[in-house]
Amino acid sequence: MNSAPPAPSYDIVGIGNAIVDVMAPAEDAAIEALGLARGGMTLVDTARARELYDAMGPAKEISGGSAANTLAGLATLGAKCAFIGQVAGDQLGEVFAHDIRATGIRFDVPARPGEPATARCLIFVSPDGQRTMNTYLGASQFLPSAALDEALIADSRFLYLEGYLWDPEEPRAAMKKAIAAARGAGREVAFTLSDSFVIARHGDDFRALIDAGEIDVLFANEGELAALTGIDDFETGLASLAPKVPTLVVTRSEKGAVAVSGGKRAQVLAEPIAQVIDTTGAGDLFAAGFLYGRVRGMRLDQCLRAGAICAAEIISHYGARPEADLKELLVEKLG
Amino acid sequence: MNSAPPAPSYDIVGIGNAIVDVMAPAEDAAIEALGLARGGMTLVDTARARELYDAMGPAKEISGGSAANTLAGLATLGAKCAFIGQVAGDQLGEVFAHDIRATGIRFDVPARPGEPATARCLIFVSPDGQRTMNTYLGASQFLPSAALDEALIADSRFLYLEGYLWDPEEPRAAMKKAIAAARGAGREVAFTLSDSFVIARHGDDFRALIDAGEIDVLFANEGELAALTGIDDFETGLASLAPKVPTLVVTRSEKGAVAVSGGKRAQVLAEPIAQVIDTTGAGDLFAAGFLYGRVRGMRLDQCLRAGAICAAEIISHYGARPEADLKELLVEKLG
Repeated sequence: MNSAPPAPSYDIVGIGNAIVDVMAPAEDAAIEALGLARGGMTLVDTARARELYDAMGPAKEISGGSAANTLAGLATLGAKCAFIGQVAGDQLGEVFAHDIRATGIRFDVPARPGEPATARCLIFVSPDGQRTMNTYLGASQFLPSAALDEALIADSRFLYLEGYLWDPEEPRAAMKKAIAAARGAGREVAFTLSDSFVIARHGDDFRALIDAGEIDVLFANEGELAALTGIDDFETGLASLAPKVPTLVVTRSEKGAVAVSGGKRAQVLAEPIAQVIDTTGAGDLFAAGFLYGRVRGMRLDQCLRAGAICAAEIISHYGARPEADLKELLVEKLG
Repeated sequence: MNSAPPAPSYDIVGIGNAIVDVMAPAEDAAIEALGLARGGMTLVDTARARELYDAMGPAKEISGGSAANTLAGLATLGAKCAFIGQVAGDQLGEVFAHDIRATGIRFDVPARPGEPATARCLIFVSPDGQRTMNTYLGASQFLPSAALDEALIADSRFLYLEGYLWDPEEPRAAMKKAIAAARGAGREVAFTLSDSFVIARHGDDFRALIDAGEIDVLFANEGELAALTGIDDFETGLASLAPKVPTLVVTRSEKGAVAVSGGKRAQVLAEPIAQVIDTTGAGDLFAAGFLYGRVRGMRLDQCLRAGAICAAEIISHYGARPEADLKELLVEKLG
């Protein structure tokens, strides 16, 4: 029998894409004319990124990246966080590194010299707030295993992994190594499935990880739940997957979210907001609120509520990094 | 007697700094602790820019530059515009060029290879919306006379010049050449004084240009009027300067603005808005609205009103580039 691991210095260490979002409003007709799937995420190469950028209106650059957004939420809430991801040695890499450090998150991975450039995500935001994402992965897909600080991972209560990063080969190997380091140190692993296309390509990996008991907290949305289980009916899919992970959290957009943990189920309605401006980062910030609740030892329904409150903040403005004082918001709304 | 010049293809060609704004909210105490003059504009070198960026919170990157902001406003209103300014061949240069072209503005000046980088302005935004600007001029200060397209200048109804750009040597020479090209083609020259520090260094140049009748429309704020005339009392200063320029426009922040043109005076109150979020670009967008009125042949009081409406839009959100459909706003408010 193992003794309890020592108290960790960090609440969460996250591994994810290091991306700067390039965001502009767009009419749905323009999104369609460009051949984009409204609401989707598509990987693009240099030429397509150029073509889409040329077609884009005046934009804003705001740091993004799924796990990085989640950590930004967690750090804003007061959790102690560290991020592992790969930028290039260019201006967008500086922007990403500045923003994540300025949020109070430890970020030590050195910039990767030369080409390709730092990742960017060209995001067309529809009038109703729906986002259509086109990701140029650039340097982000070359996160090497050597960039992992295993001592840091062993010193964090949660390891948080972004499914998007399972797709490229080098980061996938790094993430497998990170899972082993976390589990070896008696830490918990939280994982977000990110997108159905990742499940289409790597679903077998994910199911194997789940079956092996490597994932303690699994985040999915409705589409990802269906993709992973192969079951379209929400309740049936939930009932099929829930027994396999200690904690399963499924977000359902305006229908709220459901969590099943240790056989207990809780659910939450979406937090009402005046106007949806930009849904980019909604799932990321839901995960931030939920994990913050876990770190602080909240009840399952409170964790969900914290997730819903953070998601509501992020969709009420442009960009996937929090603008409001989330900590104050939680105190106000959760008491 | 000269014959009337041919009808121009462009409404406005502007020459200004090609800058990307890096903006973050900041408490006034933090601004003071950094030794910054709240509400001011300070030129910074690479080392100071680095120091201030390190001290800045998570930021957003949004294209800026005084004259470029004015042109973005004019183009959004429907005026045909062209911009002349210098970016470097880097990512921020691409961002600036993309955003200005995506606003429908012609921009042909090739990026300058090598160092220094594209200009950026680190902007700390106080809780009351006041902005404190720290400008790293980079490539922008090396706009060469050779970048001027004199045929384009001759083919634009107005040449619009930004006083900030009078400070570095190369662009000053370029602007002098541009004034000659515009006047030679029978076009009008509009000039914004930009900042008291520019007047402190180049006031003699500006007074000489005015006395020589080279400026048709002059924009100033209260502080710049006082700096240029050496007269602190607003009305006395106005009365002293107004006879020397065909059209003088003086903005007075929340007190509105005054214009004197051909001996006639008009004034406007500031447009009421729900909340001031960020005052960056208020003067730039006032100039946009006013010049749009001139281009469309509006009465002096309507030109002022158009300026006030555009200024109110820009201070109601982050960043100095318009987000609302200014054309629709003008129709709604001016009829």
